[in-house]
Amino acid sequence: MSVPDAENSSRKLRSDGERSRKRILETAADLATTIGLGGLSIGELARATGMSKGGIAAHFASKQLLQLATIDMALSIFQREVLDPAFRTSPGVPRLLSICEHDLSYIRRRVFPGGCFFSAVAAEFCNRAGSVKNRIAEASKVWLGLLETTIREAVELGQLRNDTDPEQLAFELNGLIVSANFEYMLHEEPTPLDRAEHAINRAVDARRTIQHGA
Amino acid sequence: MSVPDAENSSRKLRSDGERSRKRILETAADLATTIGLGGLSIGELARATGMSKGGIAAHFASKQLLQLATIDMALSIFQREVLDPAFRTSPGVPRLLSICEHDLSYIRRRVFPGGCFFSAVAAEFCNRAGSVKNRIAEASKVWLGLLETTIREAVELGQLRNDTDPEQLAFELNGLIVSANFEYMLHEEPTPLDRAEHAINRAVDARRTIQHGA
Repeated sequence: MSVPDAENSSRKLRSDGERSRKRILETAADLATTIGLGGLSIGELARATGMSKGGIAAHFASKQLLQLATIDMALSIFQREVLDPAFRTSPGVPRLLSICEHDLSYIRRRVFPGGCFFSAVAAEFCNRAGSVKNRIAEASKVWLGLLETTIREAVELGQLRNDTDPEQLAFELNGLIVSANFEYMLHEEPTPLDRAEHAINRAVDARRTIQHGA
Repeated sequence: MSVPDAENSSRKLRSDGERSRKRILETAADLATTIGLGGLSIGELARATGMSKGGIAAHFASKQLLQLATIDMALSIFQREVLDPAFRTSPGVPRLLSICEHDLSYIRRRVFPGGCFFSAVAAEFCNRAGSVKNRIAEASKVWLGLLETTIREAVELGQLRNDTDPEQLAFELNGLIVSANFEYMLHEEPTPLDRAEHAINRAVDARRTIQHGA
């Protein structure tokens, strides 16, 4: 029976293609945090993956499509390493703190060798108009929106004071993480991550309806 | 009398050379915030200044020396735009707030087209070992040290509580400014700068010996 055989081998080809595409994009996401998303090239990816240049080029019609696909891969890694585990925690303050802790841990564990993927590419592309910048700005808005929603839930659950400004607090928590990331990379020692964790706990505690320390 | 004439023309040549070197480095510092310090090239600088490639190359023995000289130029611009005016304010809390305000204003006024020079190059070079990264890390330490000293003076003057941790507060204030800078550039609207200013005032007020609001 030739039809099922053809189907099988076409499925195998497809899944081989998906596997190699995934491998290229994971490598690209790593490289984006060290040499930059703008520094990605077919040659660089061939060297880093050990695949042929032709094999890599076949997957991406343009450099821009490679960059956009790399951002999507990084989003799925961030989902797996930070958001999925944090969302297993109950809503409100526990989840808010868990998101921040998992984010700091993802930086500390060097899930990407150059620290937070999104801080790196935001800094690199914030002044380069175009669809890559737009995708990064969109991801930044989703991330801040997620912190804001979690803070809003904490207020609704009566855990944080009614006068808490979710956008302001989200901005502050994110700021501590972003700068801890860059200082950790720049000075190659983890004190900034500890300082960020301390400040995040303090900022959240200061807004609790029942004060825990301060 | 030929000797004084020769001296005059040698002085003129020297000051022409200094002027053109200054013009190249100011352009380089601007470009470093948009295309990156790593993206600087003789060709790019020739295009941006309207000078000849040979005229530019004559000033810098290597790309690395150009990058280091660009950082020094940015430091002197930062000194002029942020530190000099802020240090006219009296020591302690007034000076601390003035440093932060001038820093936010330097970002808002786009002294460099791509926002804070030091945040941009720190993000770009934090994962690239070498003398350029070292110079940036050194500038970052001097900046944080300056905030810490100003905070320490505010404690000694009895303006901030004795239990204030200067390193921790300096980290937090800097973090608010760094992330405001990147969000301002990425989302192209100034709310993050306003949020940073609000949070800085709040963080300092929370540590005052005599509480002003909070």
